[in-house]
Amino acid sequence: MKKISLGSNIFEFPMPVTLLGTSVGGRANFMALGWISRANANPPLVVIGVGNHHYSIRGLRESKTFSINYPGADMRIATDYCGIVTGESTDKSKVFDVYYGVLKTAPLIAECPLAFECRLVQEVPLQSNSLFIGEIVESYTEERYLTAGKPDIKKMNPLLLTMPDNRYWTVGECAGAAWHDGREYKRS
Amino acid sequence: MKKISLGSNIFEFPMPVTLLGTSVGGRANFMALGWISRANANPPLVVIGVGNHHYSIRGLRESKTFSINYPGADMRIATDYCGIVTGESTDKSKVFDVYYGVLKTAPLIAECPLAFECRLVQEVPLQSNSLFIGEIVESYTEERYLTAGKPDIKKMNPLLLTMPDNRYWTVGECAGAAWHDGREYKRS
Repeated sequence: MKKISLGSNIFEFPMPVTLLGTSVGGRANFMALGWISRANANPPLVVIGVGNHHYSIRGLRESKTFSINYPGADMRIATDYCGIVTGESTDKSKVFDVYYGVLKTAPLIAECPLAFECRLVQEVPLQSNSLFIGEIVESYTEERYLTAGKPDIKKMNPLLLTMPDNRYWTVGECAGAAWHDGREYKRS
Repeated sequence: MKKISLGSNIFEFPMPVTLLGTSVGGRANFMALGWISRANANPPLVVIGVGNHHYSIRGLRESKTFSINYPGADMRIATDYCGIVTGESTDKSKVFDVYYGVLKTAPLIAECPLAFECRLVQEVPLQSNSLFIGEIVESYTEERYLTAGKPDIKKMNPLLLTMPDNRYWTVGECAGAAWHDGREYKRS
């Protein structure tokens, strides 16, 4: 089992594909975002990593609100488009049907099976990127994406991203039960 | 398209399944970790969210190093076990074959198709959890997991996690090319 080096520029593997929604100068803007994680259990906080050169940063700092939207696999082309063009030179406010929730300034995407809105609570400046920590205040879905009242990932059909091969993936088969299957573990 | 609320306690959807490796009092310890994201492009930084009550926190602060290991789907039972029992009362140092890299104090899991080691550079205390930002210094795989020199996700076969249904998933079919398919986008 000989190990070989892949260097230091390794990415979370795979990353979820989301669309970050911000309001810049009062106009909705969206960028493709894979650098996201839950940050805190209680209160519910999320952390995102955004390149310091991104137009979305202006919106984060202006309104101190943002949305995270999970596109279904059928939204691949529009999602990827939002990762290719910048809001600085391209108006992306009409790419999706936009609605607003309780925060009023975080644009949400109607076509996305799951979306949530956040209030910015902290910014952690790093070298080429910054972390933005937001408190999740509300989340939205539709009845057709639920099974027994819970989000059903096979119905939502989100996208995953791998780098450096730059490919999108869907979610495959159910592989087991978390906080359960480990009970079968036997020490050898 | 009537939107319904799912409340504020929404999780990244889906989360990658990793094992966080730390050295606590000189002994290797592993916990299942889904709260992880790349944080910075250059230098390569990663951010993880860990509950303040976790035993792994001691190791992060003691050695100021850690590892992130991606178990294959065939490692589901041992991985889930590491998410059920705490290092405080259970010695998890023998669950996997452990090796060390350039940092010497970040235990890496030989069975995992992909692993990397980090030097802790910053801690961001939150309410119930803390964020730990680490610089990736080296990553490891094996020749059999590569295609054309790049990590092949179908060969590595990592696990994903959804909550609150608490299920593991594998990665499905390739769905497209990132920073490419968006060129087909046509404004309607």
